[in-house]
Amino acid sequence: MSDSIILRLARARKTVRKFDSTPVEMADVITVLEAGSQAPSGANSQPWRFLIITDPNTKAIIREASEEGEKEFYRTVGGGLKNWLNGKGIDWHKPFLEEAPLLVLVFSDGAAPYSTESVWLSIGYILLSLEEKGLHTITYTPSNPQEILEKLEIPQGFRLEAVLPIGFPKFRESKEERRDVSEVSYLNSWERKLE
Amino acid sequence: MSDSIILRLARARKTVRKFDSTPVEMADVITVLEAGSQAPSGANSQPWRFLIITDPNTKAIIREASEEGEKEFYRTVGGGLKNWLNGKGIDWHKPFLEEAPLLVLVFSDGAAPYSTESVWLSIGYILLSLEEKGLHTITYTPSNPQEILEKLEIPQGFRLEAVLPIGFPKFRESKEERRDVSEVSYLNSWERKLE
Repeated sequence: MSDSIILRLARARKTVRKFDSTPVEMADVITVLEAGSQAPSGANSQPWRFLIITDPNTKAIIREASEEGEKEFYRTVGGGLKNWLNGKGIDWHKPFLEEAPLLVLVFSDGAAPYSTESVWLSIGYILLSLEEKGLHTITYTPSNPQEILEKLEIPQGFRLEAVLPIGFPKFRESKEERRDVSEVSYLNSWERKLE
Repeated sequence: MSDSIILRLARARKTVRKFDSTPVEMADVITVLEAGSQAPSGANSQPWRFLIITDPNTKAIIREASEEGEKEFYRTVGGGLKNWLNGKGIDWHKPFLEEAPLLVLVFSDGAAPYSTESVWLSIGYILLSLEEKGLHTITYTPSNPQEILEKLEIPQGFRLEAVLPIGFPKFRESKEERRDVSEVSYLNSWERKLE
């Protein structure tokens, strides 16, 4: 066992797709976003923006726009990804966008250098902070973010990187298996796996 | 003050560009990469690969290839980014690629869905884990990664997302200021900033 708190949180943290209606403390969400705001970014541009949605009507709009995009995506997806999705029973329905008590939409400022990279690094901070607070999420990436940008009147130049529904799990779900670090790490040469 | 460990680590963590020669424990690096390997990813593809470099000759090769790319970049960079770089005294020289006792090159498998996003989320885990271990880094993104991919004979299809030199700071450096979370967050509408 390790004495690393980060490793413990990272191991424990798992994606949740079914939320119950237990409310989420706004103070916890703000702490989590404060952590995310401390991430490094290209030229310290801090290109993240966070739109917290608690309003049920707005959640319904986001769900509808998302599901429209997903229907199109599921018509065309193929290969290994399609098999994986089928195996998990994942389809175009995104009820978590309404069932979770709160959504955080995460945007990047497209004018900033390495803005997508910086914002996803910030999302890494956010996921561990949620786990510490006992909160759960899924990093949902809409197939057609444009529709959501328009419906919510997001200013030009901002990209929707992810929607994070935040709440508490309805069921106990298990974590997807991860490969051991030795299977994805090399020492001094790609020819030499870490032992 | 907050009782959140993640927020405390996120606030304390800052970029370091000058490293001393104090060696880094490999066990700590492995713990850190274990944490990174636990991140979620598109279709759980786990598209991250980590190449740890301790060999001085390989570090020198990486530095030389990186600086070649940077010289080209600094010939063409302009605007706000150029001003920011000048103000920080940052130029094409990348001595940290040799001075840090150890480098971790982070790659993404370009065939995986959302591979760049997933890998940068994993880098977020890694940065907080380094901070917990008392280790320091900079998320260096080479201007011309192709040269490094070729010199190190990385298999086709993998992208070099970042080079993380890991070690201990030579000087006490201060953290770049971050905007308060209220300046980058909105509630239910982009028109309404978080209070």
